[in-house]
Amino acid sequence: MDLEKDQAATFPPINPRASFIWHGGDYNPEQWPPAVWDEDIRLMQRSHYTVPTVGVFSWVQLQPDEEHFTFEWLDTILDKLADSGRFVCLATPTAAQPAWMSQQYPDVLRADNTGQRRHHGNRVNFCPTSPNYRYFAQQIAGRLAERYFAHPALVAWHISNEYGGTCYCETCASEFRSWLQQRYESLDALNACYWSAFWGHTYTSWEQIEPPYADGERAIHGLNIDYRRFQSEMMLHCFQLERDAIRVFSPDVPITTNLMGTYFDLDYRSWAKEMDVVSWDNYPRPNDSPANIAFQHDLHRGLRDGQPFMLMEQTPSSQNWQAINALKRPGVLRLWSYQAVAHGADTVMYFQWRRGRGGIEKMHGAVVEHAGRTDARVFQEVTTLGAELERLGDKTLGATTPAKVALLFDWNNWWGLQDTVGPVREKEYVPVIRQHYSAFWNRNVSVDIVFSDSDLSRYSIVVAPMLYMVRPGVAERIEAFVEQGGTFVATYLSGLVDEHDLAFENGYPGPLKRVLGIWSEEIDALYPEQGNQIVMNDQSGTYTCGRLSEIIHCEGAEALATYGTDFYAGQPVVTRNSFGKGAAYYIASEPEEHFLNDFYARLLTEQQVQPLLEAPTGVEVTRRDTEQGTLLFLLNHNAESVQITLPREQRYHDLIADKTVADTLQLAARDVAILSMMV
Amino acid sequence: MDLEKDQAATFPPINPRASFIWHGGDYNPEQWPPAVWDEDIRLMQRSHYTVPTVGVFSWVQLQPDEEHFTFEWLDTILDKLADSGRFVCLATPTAAQPAWMSQQYPDVLRADNTGQRRHHGNRVNFCPTSPNYRYFAQQIAGRLAERYFAHPALVAWHISNEYGGTCYCETCASEFRSWLQQRYESLDALNACYWSAFWGHTYTSWEQIEPPYADGERAIHGLNIDYRRFQSEMMLHCFQLERDAIRVFSPDVPITTNLMGTYFDLDYRSWAKEMDVVSWDNYPRPNDSPANIAFQHDLHRGLRDGQPFMLMEQTPSSQNWQAINALKRPGVLRLWSYQAVAHGADTVMYFQWRRGRGGIEKMHGAVVEHAGRTDARVFQEVTTLGAELERLGDKTLGATTPAKVALLFDWNNWWGLQDTVGPVREKEYVPVIRQHYSAFWNRNVSVDIVFSDSDLSRYSIVVAPMLYMVRPGVAERIEAFVEQGGTFVATYLSGLVDEHDLAFENGYPGPLKRVLGIWSEEIDALYPEQGNQIVMNDQSGTYTCGRLSEIIHCEGAEALATYGTDFYAGQPVVTRNSFGKGAAYYIASEPEEHFLNDFYARLLTEQQVQPLLEAPTGVEVTRRDTEQGTLLFLLNHNAESVQITLPREQRYHDLIADKTVADTLQLAARDVAILSMMV
Amino acid sequence: MDLEKDQAATFPPINPRASFIWHGGDYNPEQWPPAVWDEDIRLMQRSHYTVPTVGVFSWVQLQPDEEHFTFEWLDTILDKLADSGRFVCLATPTAAQPAWMSQQYPDVLRADNTGQRRHHGNRVNFCPTSPNYRYFAQQIAGRLAERYFAHPALVAWHISNEYGGTCYCETCASEFRSWLQQRYESLDALNACYWSAFWGHTYTSWEQIEPPYADGERAIHGLNIDYRRFQSEMMLHCFQLERDAIRVFSPDVPITTNLMGTYFDLDYRSWAKEMDVVSWDNYPRPNDSPANIAFQHDLHRGLRDGQPFMLMEQTPSSQNWQAINALKRPGVLRLWSYQAVAHGADTVMYFQWRRGRGGIEKMHGAVVEHAGRTDARVFQEVTTLGAELERLGDKTLGATTPAKVALLFDWNNWWGLQDTVGPVREKEYVPVIRQHYSAFWNRNVSVDIVFSDSDLSRYSIVVAPMLYMVRPGVAERIEAFVEQGGTFVATYLSGLVDEHDLAFENGYPGPLKRVLGIWSEEIDALYPEQGNQIVMNDQSGTYTCGRLSEIIHCEGAEALATYGTDFYAGQPVVTRNSFGKGAAYYIASEPEEHFLNDFYARLLTEQQVQPLLEAPTGVEVTRRDTEQGTLLFLLNHNAESVQITLPREQRYHDLIADKTVADTLQLAARDVAILSMMV
Repeated sequence: MDLEKDQAATFPPINPRASFIWHGGDYNPEQWPPAVWDEDIRLMQRSHYTVPTVGVFSWVQLQPDEEHFTFEWLDTILDKLADSGRFVCLATPTAAQPAWMSQQYPDVLRADNTGQRRHHGNRVNFCPTSPNYRYFAQQIAGRLAERYFAHPALVAWHISNEYGGTCYCETCASEFRSWLQQRYESLDALNACYWSAFWGHTYTSWEQIEPPYADGERAIHGLNIDYRRFQSEMMLHCFQLERDAIRVFSPDVPITTNLMGTYFDLDYRSWAKEMDVVSWDNYPRPNDSPANIAFQHDLHRGLRDGQPFMLMEQTPSSQNWQAINALKRPGVLRLWSYQAVAHGADTVMYFQWRRGRGGIEKMHGAVVEHAGRTDARVFQEVTTLGAELERLGDKTLGATTPAKVALLFDWNNWWGLQDTVGPVREKEYVPVIRQHYSAFWNRNVSVDIVFSDSDLSRYSIVVAPMLYMVRPGVAERIEAFVEQGGTFVATYLSGLVDEHDLAFENGYPGPLKRVLGIWSEEIDALYPEQGNQIVMNDQSGTYTCGRLSEIIHCEGAEALATYGTDFYAGQPVVTRNSFGKGAAYYIASEPEEHFLNDFYARLLTEQQVQPLLEAPTGVEVTRRDTEQGTLLFLLNHNAESVQITLPREQRYHDLIADKTVADTLQLAARDVAILSMMV
Repeated sequence: MDLEKDQAATFPPINPRASFIWHGGDYNPEQWPPAVWDEDIRLMQRSHYTVPTVGVFSWVQLQPDEEHFTFEWLDTILDKLADSGRFVCLATPTAAQPAWMSQQYPDVLRADNTGQRRHHGNRVNFCPTSPNYRYFAQQIAGRLAERYFAHPALVAWHISNEYGGTCYCETCASEFRSWLQQRYESLDALNACYWSAFWGHTYTSWEQIEPPYADGERAIHGLNIDYRRFQSEMMLHCFQLERDAIRVFSPDVPITTNLMGTYFDLDYRSWAKEMDVVSWDNYPRPNDSPANIAFQHDLHRGLRDGQPFMLMEQTPSSQNWQAINALKRPGVLRLWSYQAVAHGADTVMYFQWRRGRGGIEKMHGAVVEHAGRTDARVFQEVTTLGAELERLGDKTLGATTPAKVALLFDWNNWWGLQDTVGPVREKEYVPVIRQHYSAFWNRNVSVDIVFSDSDLSRYSIVVAPMLYMVRPGVAERIEAFVEQGGTFVATYLSGLVDEHDLAFENGYPGPLKRVLGIWSEEIDALYPEQGNQIVMNDQSGTYTCGRLSEIIHCEGAEALATYGTDFYAGQPVVTRNSFGKGAAYYIASEPEEHFLNDFYARLLTEQQVQPLLEAPTGVEVTRRDTEQGTLLFLLNHNAESVQITLPREQRYHDLIADKTVADTLQLAARDVAILSMMV
Repeated sequence: MDLEKDQAATFPPINPRASFIWHGGDYNPEQWPPAVWDEDIRLMQRSHYTVPTVGVFSWVQLQPDEEHFTFEWLDTILDKLADSGRFVCLATPTAAQPAWMSQQYPDVLRADNTGQRRHHGNRVNFCPTSPNYRYFAQQIAGRLAERYFAHPALVAWHISNEYGGTCYCETCASEFRSWLQQRYESLDALNACYWSAFWGHTYTSWEQIEPPYADGERAIHGLNIDYRRFQSEMMLHCFQLERDAIRVFSPDVPITTNLMGTYFDLDYRSWAKEMDVVSWDNYPRPNDSPANIAFQHDLHRGLRDGQPFMLMEQTPSSQNWQAINALKRPGVLRLWSYQAVAHGADTVMYFQWRRGRGGIEKMHGAVVEHAGRTDARVFQEVTTLGAELERLGDKTLGATTPAKVALLFDWNNWWGLQDTVGPVREKEYVPVIRQHYSAFWNRNVSVDIVFSDSDLSRYSIVVAPMLYMVRPGVAERIEAFVEQGGTFVATYLSGLVDEHDLAFENGYPGPLKRVLGIWSEEIDALYPEQGNQIVMNDQSGTYTCGRLSEIIHCEGAEALATYGTDFYAGQPVVTRNSFGKGAAYYIASEPEEHFLNDFYARLLTEQQVQPLLEAPTGVEVTRRDTEQGTLLFLLNHNAESVQITLPREQRYHDLIADKTVADTLQLAARDVAILSMMV
């Protein structure tokens, strides 16, 4: 093992006033009578629940009508928490407007995709362009900041909750037209970018433009993606308005909102730029693979270029909204909590402290379940974990992951890809991204998730699966990266359209043709029972492939593998193009998993990127560099114990077990070690 | 066989003027020209069709506009029927309002679940709170009663038809608010019961409350279930209004409306209290198990605590609205008709007399099909059956079923269970109820279906599967039952919430904890490919279980079986708690069918509840006690003949074959015997 | 082989000014800057693209607002095309109204099936009864005709595009009422035909009648089918209005609109009568059977009683709107193009010339793909085909197919059958039609598709599967056909209802009883896992059958086969009734494919209808008679080459290979030969 020295700057703690791994999460005392509050405090102390999140959804409790504000109960709660040594992540309540607001100002309600105004209820049911919603949301955020900016418990602001969805109301329609006028300036420009002459959809007046209603205009891809951009921006604007209202009073406390991983509706890359710290809610399926969860963590670490994030929510036991909601097995909560830290989390937080008695989340897992008993398995696992995290102190905070491999993910690409009609209906962008990610994860090679605007210069290998939409500057950045020695990998369905979802006219993969040295002539789509083969030209093997198969021609590249069958048998399926000091690869068909494992193994060897550790299957290893040195996280996802061989002559300190480790490490089922390299 | 003497009172016939098994059903002469009517009468006489149901849906024919009534055709029909020796079940036509009414008074139309008023058409498309609908429905019911109360043919009133569905219109919304104000008195009380502080949904004014629109408030379980209660009550109120309008003129003729078995929308238990006699429409799938049909009959017999019911509708041949509508095989119509009688029916009636030439039921089975031929198989089977029933006279009427086993079914529980989110999406309340029912049916043990308000004192064993919602008084009644020596059986997902769908805070199974002597800590949900085992502590066997598995702790109870695998292996899965003179059992996971068969076999033996008869598989045996003595119904559901061994030294009279039977009985495929015990 | 002489008149070419197989299709220059136009012309010349279709959807480009028309660009295009030796199929642009029109005259927008007006967008989104739409559509059609009637390029008019769908707006509702008043004259007549007394749906005023809204009246089959008829007529009326506006200026140029095969919404038989030439768009699934495609071609040839049709659209490579859009393998485009000609096409045209850069069809196949390269496989295949077609000249034009077998297809029957509730939900009319068709196709026996109003006298065998609805005159025509020696074949689900969807009262198959000599008493529906057998009385075999099984009685007919099992075992399942000089057969259950092959083989032998050629499996043979003599098309659908034995002592000229052929013919994979019989 050769952990090269990386001069990576580490990051400051989220809030220097609370320089430890925050352990806490959603706390809704407003749902219980005050009599329960003291019991809550007692149990929080017992379970090392250090940073409750307070205030999410409590708008009507804070503002029961337009004229009155009732902060007194919140004063009491915050004081009690401070008095008991807790800190608070304080939320604005704006994810669910009060019923009085929906009733008095119906424009605050969201409209469905035919333009029909919805009824009041549920959550995230506000129109993001509604002047009234914006006014009231800013107001309550400002009031909270004004009142609590100096409260001793306050360590972070949590704005609203899980923004998302789409509104199609008249206000949005009108704002959208203004947004388009700013963006395109002339109708001619818009018509050109929308290719609206197709089916005679040319607009002759701005007033004719409507959102892409389900019962209206769905045929213009440029309109569809612009409406996604517009809605993502408008919701972000709501966030910004609250953020700015808070900063007037509370300029130094970090502000976040909780994201949701590969969530389709919002371009989180642009959102992250507006946040002081990224936070997210981790709700995998009970049987999800650890690689998929790891990918999500890396995605959120990447959103702000490596800055540690907050694990804002996870369930202590089970979820409730899936079709089947299994319990987290003993040890899984701890294992998955450390997995978050291993990938960049500086907090371990839950939804939710106490399980509500009513409402549609009453069966969702909580630290304190309905029985309120401390001898419950879940409460005890949380308590044990809390104590451990407390002992870790600040040793893992602010660390960085020195990855040499980057995987490119792009929301605009996802939107465009998903919307395009053909060559297959289900594009499976995220599954494909995960397939490539897993090939590295399987070898314990750190991966950064990067974006179309990311700096690629620090990486050896950049992989961009299905980069259907190539926005301005992207091809140039990739070319520069390869020219300077980088290794770039692209796949089928790349380089088809520009940022307006207009097809490139010079042949696919459009602006990536030069660096890839190929022309993709046709895209074949195969039925599930069909398939083809990837036959390696160096005789190293044959793999199956299918679903999508492009017929490509080398125009500068060399073929590494050819198709094994069908009328394009013998034509290239995997190519390599030398370009400057580097090389660019193209994988023209969807391969089986084995291919990616072998293919990337070769690339990693060539680029001298070595696994962090050779570990048994199901053992995940990540590296985090702190100012004090390098940490290795070893996570045993197996339900059995394993023995791990450590590099010779290297001694470590296991931060959790607080003991020295060398040569071999026995890791119990679902156990974790955090090894600090000893000099 | 030991048929203990039971002092059960028998019931009077539905109407003493027609003291025989009614054979008849829906007759819509208004669809045909008068020329056909005499042919109808001729064929009814021939087929022993003694009690046609007349008037269903004939509103526009009776009241072609707001001012005019046209009863003359009905006068003619009733007279012809009376003249030919028929009786009549006379229906009010209010299930389908005339088009003129929908057009002149649009408030009579139902609104869909987004509040959108529907167009006129189909049936049961009225708003149950519409003042205009109520006015006109009462009016026509009263007019019919006034005109026909003394008609010689009249033996029963049939109000409207298959009430159901839900309306979400503005009238309903407004009436719902009034209903809530009466129920909760204060908004604070309502907010507390609705746990509306969750997601900040606290109401600050009554006017803010809306029905649970599909595009509005769906997150408050208390609201959801209250709206179901409200709608069930409002429809019942429509029934009551018509009933009372009829009683003014016709106080002595029994009044019913046709129910539909385990129909989700309406709480039939509360409906049955308002009816003079229960009636229902039996439409099983062609391949449904006879146990499932038997369960439905027992449910309807239970609705009025054992009182015989009317089989109001069944198809003589095939249905038409299922995906695949097989014919009833020869003999099945007769077999299923006697099955109804065996479980408590005092009538055998059909939908429909003559198959309509148009409309969406034109392919539905009928006694007289389109060809109108009497040599048709179906007409002949009906005729043969009619003759047999006629010969039976009043011998089966008014009988009682002396069941010692009760199975608890509760609509409020179903509503709450279905609505709750987690731990699995599909709760399968009815399938689970049926699974327990079948374990008794398989042994030919009579079962009564009881409800949360039923008197349990006459039973030896009470089974209450998935009693998620325990309403006030229920736990107390169960405790009293067990204390006095009863055997109570509960399962996973019991005792979670109160009548407001609020979780109990003392740990599940809430108010049933004391009698069951357990605490259920966690509920695991398993994927279909997973499973666990029930390992009997007495070494008597191991069974598979799964889907839902609760982790329970004995707090007074003893474990009869433990889990075989997973992290809760060795923890109790079946428990028994001695309580007073009786015992209460808990089955913590969903077992395979074999477990229930063995488990209940042991309980029945312990409680000395013996099968009515040991009979071959597929032979159903029920008991009905009349004032003249005990009847055994033997129903051969097999497509082959069987030989049944009768108890030694007991002689019977077979009422159908009219012969003496002893020792053994040969029963042909799908044949039936009604054995009267001879002294 | 005995190709009998048929005195069939041949047909004139579509337009004598262009007496060759047109090779061309959709060309949308308005989507590109003029700079691309010259390149288009160059590539069209190169690829022998002789007849581009211009103007589809270009309304806003021709009329950017109500007052202005901008034909100049179209002038230029038409002139350039003429100058380069092209002809033009000129389209009216009315399939997609401009946004300005939807905005200024909202009544032009279609309403969905609850009556909700849709938003602007997509295509075929106009209300067919809208006075404004009709005004503007006529106007633009007239203006185009006035301007271009004498243009040298003009050879055909193409009105609108792929008419279809249904509108439920208030204008349609009102027009529908007028249409009904004309049709029924009295409400009593309408009520009788609608059997509206069912469920009390009798109308007491015309104003009460509404379209069959999804949230309204769905229970009246007569209403449902009348609304289909009305909508089909109203769209046809739109076509007629444009056609007539064109004819004022351009009376001699043939007018068409492009149809879509077995498209449910429109009764193409009545449409075809209004068209000068039928045209259609052939988009099979990539894995569709050639028999299914052949059926569609024969359907369109039948629409105008054998007149050659235009293949207006097909994709040169792949479609994009299916779930999986495979490429057409090399040779398939050519094979399927000749298949069209073999069945009666006088044109081979594409959607589309150049692949658009944006919009939801940007991934649809085109002659010129995004890269614009002429070395692309698809461009080259098109070019080769174009050259071949050019060489064929007029040799195949105007030919006739001398079929002795006719298969009856009827849109009204389809509508009624699909709408009826029971005995199975999925009626599968088209799959069943195709099953019968394939039995003939498999033997290379020519089939004409005929309709309820067709002249049957020229056929030996007429097959009418599932003729559920027998409209006036049909039974009489069938009786006459059989009386004069014809062979008629009917199946289960025949003769149930009249043209109002009212069941016949004399027993099924209603008016077909006399000719078939049977009575169908009951219709059994079987679950997929069930089945029955067809046991041939002559011991010739036993076949499986199922899904639907009618219990029939011979009333004059003789049983050829009986059921093998179930309670109707031994009852007839296949019957033959001698009637006059002919015979009528009834197949009472859905048979396996083998049965139909054997059954029709026997009938063909009896009727002395011989295969055109005994050819290997997968080789299709069709016959087309021209004034010059008889042509045989040999199409090898296999992916391997085959050897075909030709009739002894007959020599042919292969028109494509331009060589003499005798004795045997070797046909490469997917290759085609057109053999002209040499005297």
